[in-house]
Amino acid sequence: MSFDRLHALIRKTKNPTVVGLDARLEYIPPQLVKECLDKHGETLEGAAEAVLRYNMALLDALQGVVPAVKPQAAYYELLGWPGVKAMHDTIQYAHDKGFYVIADIKRGDIGSTAQAYAEGWLGTPFCADCVTINGYMGSDAILPFLNIAKEEDKGVFLLVKTSNPSSGELQDMVAGDRQVYTVMADLCKRLGAGSEGECGYQTLGAVVGATYPAELRELRRRMEKTFFLVPGYGAQGGTAQDVAGAFDRYGWGAIINSSRGILCAWQKTENGAEHFQDAARAAAEAMRDDIKKYVTIV
Amino acid sequence: MSFDRLHALIRKTKNPTVVGLDARLEYIPPQLVKECLDKHGETLEGAAEAVLRYNMALLDALQGVVPAVKPQAAYYELLGWPGVKAMHDTIQYAHDKGFYVIADIKRGDIGSTAQAYAEGWLGTPFCADCVTINGYMGSDAILPFLNIAKEEDKGVFLLVKTSNPSSGELQDMVAGDRQVYTVMADLCKRLGAGSEGECGYQTLGAVVGATYPAELRELRRRMEKTFFLVPGYGAQGGTAQDVAGAFDRYGWGAIINSSRGILCAWQKTENGAEHFQDAARAAAEAMRDDIKKYVTIV
Repeated sequence: MSFDRLHALIRKTKNPTVVGLDARLEYIPPQLVKECLDKHGETLEGAAEAVLRYNMALLDALQGVVPAVKPQAAYYELLGWPGVKAMHDTIQYAHDKGFYVIADIKRGDIGSTAQAYAEGWLGTPFCADCVTINGYMGSDAILPFLNIAKEEDKGVFLLVKTSNPSSGELQDMVAGDRQVYTVMADLCKRLGAGSEGECGYQTLGAVVGATYPAELRELRRRMEKTFFLVPGYGAQGGTAQDVAGAFDRYGWGAIINSSRGILCAWQKTENGAEHFQDAARAAAEAMRDDIKKYVTIV
Repeated sequence: MSFDRLHALIRKTKNPTVVGLDARLEYIPPQLVKECLDKHGETLEGAAEAVLRYNMALLDALQGVVPAVKPQAAYYELLGWPGVKAMHDTIQYAHDKGFYVIADIKRGDIGSTAQAYAEGWLGTPFCADCVTINGYMGSDAILPFLNIAKEEDKGVFLLVKTSNPSSGELQDMVAGDRQVYTVMADLCKRLGAGSEGECGYQTLGAVVGATYPAELRELRRRMEKTFFLVPGYGAQGGTAQDVAGAFDRYGWGAIINSSRGILCAWQKTENGAEHFQDAARAAAEAMRDDIKKYVTIV
């Protein structure tokens, strides 16, 4: 079961974090960008090669330190189909290096369309271990992903309470005794029921932001068997103390994301461009140690 | 302004419909699929070439009859990066033939991530005229698309009330005096205000399903300056009478989608595989004429 693999990797590395691979050219050391653009000209192919090479170097540096990576589709689609090819190649390389790969695609569509997305991203074409999805359209937009995930032994994270400032505009609306996000949480729990792995967690996880720590703790209590993917640590303002509420009493059942904090670590380090791998690894270790002040993984 | 161009094309063709380009291999005449797989082997490249060639043949057949096409990203991502390249090439070919292109991507993400999606899909990499988006994350997920659309003279359709059976699970929740979908409708209206083109419609349109005709009429009254993209006609059960409520008194301000009804028309026609272009054109004309029984475009 997919989250059992993620769970085992987290315990092995003693590190419940995932690095977002959201490379824009300005996050990549200039020398590497220059080499790729010199080779291809100022084209999408050149930019995509720079992103792929940067990702590969980061994956080399983070191997054994971090259990999982999360490429964000937007930054690859920004580079057209060569960028999407770079995302595919990044996923493959990450697998070669033993990482669990969450494709952050936040797709939300219904029926046979949702099935096409699920087959594309969890099946052979992209072969991610897990995807993020958006359930605004209801269970029609969730079940096709969940069913393919069960068949292919993969995982899914459903957006429940997101980390951004305006997330409350819809998600916090109160209808009867529940907010919209608690309705989504209950849907997540109900649809995922019965798919628990050995680690106790369901195949359908939830995205819950670090920037709303009270809601995060409330949802942890409400969704005992739901694995949490937690964005919002670091740049967005979430602290290690905030994210502690995402974990169960064993320090299990959650993974905390950081993107720019790791990707751009070299920019805050002396001679960082030359030693960007060391800077990324040091930042990943610092994040792990920061969270470990509040969370002990059994 | 982008919807002015769409509006002019609708008036020119006297046809307020859009053809969804959602090609799966089983929708394509077998001879065409065989040629492509013989050339490339049973690979994603072979499948992607079949989809592209089928799309190009359909675009040739529909030119002058239909004003717009809507490739659905899921069916291209199903074929990996070669599929995404086929989507790019389809958009380019559709532009060469004078179609308005709505990239049905339903992306929903925030801040710089939403901006990357918007730059990718509305900017040079994919160069669609318009995209569909999902606003579950709030205005942070809408504004970056809207801002890029204004800069690049493009359009955006926001999911408001979707056509699928389970759309009510979240969208119909009642909070105070409004349902979730009316809150989304009001957000759409408010964020789009001030971006009206000569046709009177805002740069931020709405997706409203044909399968909930009462809600469709209610939203038409509530959102006078919002262009509607209406899925759910045909296979999903929406009728011409149902979709009539999407239009204003001049027969303006809405476009009705059909995908399989046009793509698979050859399967319901004698010798259809040989004459799939004729079958698609005849089906598109039949849909137009069906809607015109209830809607007169000034």
